[in-house]
Amino acid sequence: MTNTLTGIAASSGVAIGKAYLMTEPELTVTKKTITNVDDEMARFHDSIKASKQELEQIRDRTAAQQGDENAAIFDAHLLVLSDPELVGTIEGKVRNETVNAEYALQETADSLVAMFEQMDNEYMRERAADIRDVTKRVLAKLLNVSIPNIGAINEEVIIISKDLVPSDTAQLNRDYIKGFITDMGGRTSHSAIMARSMEIPAVVGTKSATSTITNNDFIIMDGDKGEVYINPAKEIIEEYEQRQIQLEAQKKELALLKNESTITLDGKRVEVASNIGTPQEAEIVLENGGEGVGLYRTEFLYMERESLPTEEEQFQAYKQVLEKMGNKPVVVRTLDIGGDKQLPYLSLPEEMNPFLGFRAIRLCLEEQEIFRIQLRALLRASSFGNLKIMFPMIATLEEFLEAKQILLEEKSSLQEQGVTVSNSIEIGIMVEIPSTAILADQFAREVDFFSIGTNDLIQYTMAADRMNERVSYLYQPYNPAILRLVKMVIDAAHANGKWAGMCGEMAGDPIAIPLLLGLGLDEFSMSAPSMLKARRQINQLSQSDMVNLANQALSMQTSEQVKQFVKETVEIQ
Amino acid sequence: MTNTLTGIAASSGVAIGKAYLMTEPELTVTKKTITNVDDEMARFHDSIKASKQELEQIRDRTAAQQGDENAAIFDAHLLVLSDPELVGTIEGKVRNETVNAEYALQETADSLVAMFEQMDNEYMRERAADIRDVTKRVLAKLLNVSIPNIGAINEEVIIISKDLVPSDTAQLNRDYIKGFITDMGGRTSHSAIMARSMEIPAVVGTKSATSTITNNDFIIMDGDKGEVYINPAKEIIEEYEQRQIQLEAQKKELALLKNESTITLDGKRVEVASNIGTPQEAEIVLENGGEGVGLYRTEFLYMERESLPTEEEQFQAYKQVLEKMGNKPVVVRTLDIGGDKQLPYLSLPEEMNPFLGFRAIRLCLEEQEIFRIQLRALLRASSFGNLKIMFPMIATLEEFLEAKQILLEEKSSLQEQGVTVSNSIEIGIMVEIPSTAILADQFAREVDFFSIGTNDLIQYTMAADRMNERVSYLYQPYNPAILRLVKMVIDAAHANGKWAGMCGEMAGDPIAIPLLLGLGLDEFSMSAPSMLKARRQINQLSQSDMVNLANQALSMQTSEQVKQFVKETVEIQ
Repeated sequence: MTNTLTGIAASSGVAIGKAYLMTEPELTVTKKTITNVDDEMARFHDSIKASKQELEQIRDRTAAQQGDENAAIFDAHLLVLSDPELVGTIEGKVRNETVNAEYALQETADSLVAMFEQMDNEYMRERAADIRDVTKRVLAKLLNVSIPNIGAINEEVIIISKDLVPSDTAQLNRDYIKGFITDMGGRTSHSAIMARSMEIPAVVGTKSATSTITNNDFIIMDGDKGEVYINPAKEIIEEYEQRQIQLEAQKKELALLKNESTITLDGKRVEVASNIGTPQEAEIVLENGGEGVGLYRTEFLYMERESLPTEEEQFQAYKQVLEKMGNKPVVVRTLDIGGDKQLPYLSLPEEMNPFLGFRAIRLCLEEQEIFRIQLRALLRASSFGNLKIMFPMIATLEEFLEAKQILLEEKSSLQEQGVTVSNSIEIGIMVEIPSTAILADQFAREVDFFSIGTNDLIQYTMAADRMNERVSYLYQPYNPAILRLVKMVIDAAHANGKWAGMCGEMAGDPIAIPLLLGLGLDEFSMSAPSMLKARRQINQLSQSDMVNLANQALSMQTSEQVKQFVKETVEIQ
Repeated sequence: MTNTLTGIAASSGVAIGKAYLMTEPELTVTKKTITNVDDEMARFHDSIKASKQELEQIRDRTAAQQGDENAAIFDAHLLVLSDPELVGTIEGKVRNETVNAEYALQETADSLVAMFEQMDNEYMRERAADIRDVTKRVLAKLLNVSIPNIGAINEEVIIISKDLVPSDTAQLNRDYIKGFITDMGGRTSHSAIMARSMEIPAVVGTKSATSTITNNDFIIMDGDKGEVYINPAKEIIEEYEQRQIQLEAQKKELALLKNESTITLDGKRVEVASNIGTPQEAEIVLENGGEGVGLYRTEFLYMERESLPTEEEQFQAYKQVLEKMGNKPVVVRTLDIGGDKQLPYLSLPEEMNPFLGFRAIRLCLEEQEIFRIQLRALLRASSFGNLKIMFPMIATLEEFLEAKQILLEEKSSLQEQGVTVSNSIEIGIMVEIPSTAILADQFAREVDFFSIGTNDLIQYTMAADRMNERVSYLYQPYNPAILRLVKMVIDAAHANGKWAGMCGEMAGDPIAIPLLLGLGLDEFSMSAPSMLKARRQINQLSQSDMVNLANQALSMQTSEQVKQFVKETVEIQ
C-alpha cells in the first residue's frame, strides 16, 4: 500500500523526485575514553577538512548567487577552523585526557563561547556565534550526520521541512528544488506565496511530513490537490508522469497568450498583473506575460538582516524592478511590517492579537524615519519607470492624508537638492480593512487608486484569522458580504474617475474572476504563474453577462450559494 | 506638590479614601540559626493561631455571601493547620536543627508538596495546592507582611492592583470598596465593565499605580477624567468633596426618572436596558429604572470554577434573573468563551490571534454538548419571564441556522418530556462581525432581532485590538464607517418588521446616543448606572432632528468630524 499524506494545496503543479529533509539533526555528545589517540586525532582532522571543503563550496556558491557581502560570513567560519589555538586546545584535550574528539571539541568550544559572550564588545559576541556555528558543523561530521543546507543542494529534490522561513524560500534554486512539503503553514503563509511566485509546487500544513518522510524517499506531490505519495506504486507514478506531460502541454498552449492583451468578448479591457516579493521576480512576471506589477511587497528587503536596509540599497532594488518593467506600471507597497512579521533589529512589543495590532502604516507613521528613508528611495527611483506608491493597512482618512503629506515633504526636499523625481506618480491605498471599504466613496476623492487586499479584508470582515485552521471555514472569498465590499470600492473609484485593482489571492481565483469582472474590477494582480490562465479565462467571458452574474451573487445569502451559482453559470477550466 | 497619576476613565464617579494595595508580597525565606528555641516555638504557634483566626473569618464571610460550597476550600485550609503531623514535623525541625520557624515551615511544606504532587491522584494533588496556600499565609504572619484579601476588607478603601480578575471583581463589596485603580486594562476590559455595572468608580491602565501608591496613602480618584491624586493638597480635597456632593444631587435628580418611560420630544419611544454579568445585578438594573436586560453575559457562570456548570445551576441563575425582571425582556447571550476568555477545564488551543479565533458560537457549534446543556437550561427557565435568546459572534447565515436548529431540537425534546417551554421566545443574534452587518438584509429575514455589539464590531471593522494601547486611536465609535454599518443593521431589521438594539459601550455614550436615535435604534443597552442619564438625554431630544443629524454624519469623512459636529449641534450634559 502506498503511504500518502494530505495537506493544503499551496502552489500548483506536480513534482516527482526524492525527498530532502530540512530538519536539524540532534547532535548529542557523550564523553568516552579512547584507546587509540592517533586514530581519534585522524578522525578529528578528517572532520575539520571535510567541514572546510563544505564551507568553501557554500562560500563560493553564495558569492556567485548573492554577492561577496553575503558570503563573508563563511570566510569568518573558515578562519575559525584554521585557528591554531582552537585546534591545538582540542588536540591537547584528546591527547592528555584520552577523551573522544566530540567531547573535546564541545568542551573547548563551550568555554570559548562563554568567554566571548561575557565581553562587552559586539564584535566578540559575534565571534561566539561563529564558533557555535562551526562547532556544529564539525560535530555533525564527527557524528556522521548531515546538516541540511538548502543553498548547497545540487541535484533535483523535493524539500521536506517543518516550515520554511522567507530566507529559505529566497534561496530556493528552481533548477534543483522541484517542490516543497511542510508540516505547518497555510495557503496565505509567506512561503506559500513565494512558492506560487516562483512556480514551485507546494503542499503545506501536512502536520506530519517531517516525521513520516525520510531522506531519499521517492515522492510524488500534487500541489493542486494537496496530496503527497511516499514511495508510491508503479501505477501512481505512471499516472503522474502522464499528468506532468499534460501540464507541460497546457503551459505551452497558455504561453501563446503571453503577448496578447486581456480583453473580454464584448471588448472590456482589464489588466492582468503580478504580485512580487523580490526584484528578481520581475523577470518571471514578464516571462508570464504580466501587464504590470500590481503589488511589490517591499518587506522582504527588510527581513532576514541585521539592520535596516539603507536608502541606497532600497533605491537599487526599486530601480531594478522599474527598469525591468519598462513603461508597465509597478505598484510598490510601502513597508508592511509588525504584527506577525517581525524584524529582529526593531524591538516591537509582543501583542496579544498581532493581526489587529501595531503594524504597516500604523508603525510607519510613528517610526517616521524608517518610512521617510523608504519614500526617498522610491522617489529617487521614480524616474526609472512607471511607479505607483501604495500605503498598506489604511483604516482612516487621516492616516492616508498624513502618509501622503510625508511623501510630498520628501519629494520637495529631494527636488530642492536637484534630484529628478517623476511628476506622475500615482498615490493609492490598499483596501484591506472593512472601514476603508465601507467609506470608499470618501477615500476615492483623495486617492489616485485602490488595490483591494483580499487576504486581510476577508479575515477582518469575517473576524477569522486566516492562519488559524480551526476557523478556516470562515475564510470565504465568495461570501456576499465580501462581494458587496468589493463593489463599494470599485463603484466609488469609478464615480471619481479612479481605478480599482485587487492584489489578494482572490484576484487569481477562477471562481472569483467572473464575479470580479462583473463588479467592474480594472486590475487583477496575482502570482505570476496564474496570469496566463486568468487572461485566457477573461478573454472567453462577456463582461455584460458577468455584470448580471455579479448582481445575482450580491443578493445571495451564503458563500456556498455563490460558489455553486458561478460553477453552474460559467465554465471553469 | 501633589503626586498625580493618569489612566483610562473606566467607570464614572469620584472616590475619596485610603489605598489598599492588592499586590502579593515577596515571601523570601532565609535559613537562620536560632538561640532560643522556646521563643521561636512561641512565634510559630502565634502565627498558626493568627492564620486560623483569619481563615475562620474568611470562611464565615464567604459562606454568608456566596454560600457554603464556596467556603469549603477554607475549611480544607483550616484542616491543614490542625494537622498534628505537619505541625509536629516543623516543631521537630526547629528544635533539633535550631533553625528559624520560617525555614522549618518552608522545608517541611516543600517536601510534602513534592510528595503529594507526584501521586497519580487528583485528590492528593489538590491537597498539595492547599498546603502551598496555607504555608504562604503562615509565612506571611511569621515575616510580618500582610497578604491582601479582597473579601476580607471591612473598612472603606480604594483598591490598587496590577489588574483585577473577574473573581476579584465579583467579590467587590460596594459598602467598603469605594473605587479601584489598576496598572493594566482598558475601557472595555472585563473588570472595567463590571465596575460600571456595580457603580464603582474605576481608573484603569495607569501603568504605575502599584509602584507609586503605598498602603494607606490618601487617594482621590476621578473615574470620569481618569485622574488619581495621591495624598493631595487641601484645596484638591475640598474641590472633590464639593464634586461628590454635586454628583449625589445629580443622582437624586436622575432618580426621579426611574419609573418614567423613554420617549423623545416628538413621541418616538425607545427602550433603555442594561447589560449584566451575574444574576445579582438584575436588582441594580431595576433600581436604575431599566426597562429590560439587553445583554446577559452568561460566561461568568462558567468562569472561575473547576468544571462546567450543570444544567440545574444554569437553570437557577436564568430563572432568578427572569423572575426578578418580571415581564420586562431579558436578552440572554449564549456562551461567549474562547479567544481571550479561557476556561481552565476546557483545554482550548493557544491561538496567535484569539480575537480572530475559535470562540463563542464557533466553539459552541463544535462542542455541542456544552451548548445543548445551556440551551436546555434556558428553555426550562423560559416560562418564568420574558426570555430572548441571542447567539454571539455570528459571521455567516449557516452558523445562525445551525444554532437555531439545535435550539429547536432541544425544545422539542424537552416538550416531549413534558417540560413547559415558552412559545414566544425570540431568537436573535449579536451583530459584532462586519460580514453580518453588511449582510443584515439577508439575516433580517431569518432572525427575530439584532443586537449590535459595538465593542467587537468596532475592533474588527477598524482592524484594531481594543485592548492594545498602541492602536487605541483606531477605536472610533463615531467613524462614519461604523455609523453606516449600524444603519445597515437597523434599516434591515425595520424593513423586515424586526427590532434592533445595541449592547456595546456605544449605546450609553452621550455623543453616540443622538446619532443612534437618528439612525432609528430601538433598544439601548448599557451599564446600569448610565441608564437614567441616557433616558434624560433621549427625553430631551427630537427624533426627527436626530435623523437629520445622523444623515449628515453618515456622509462625513472622519470620526473627529462627526464628534465635533454632534457636540456643536446637540447639548451634551
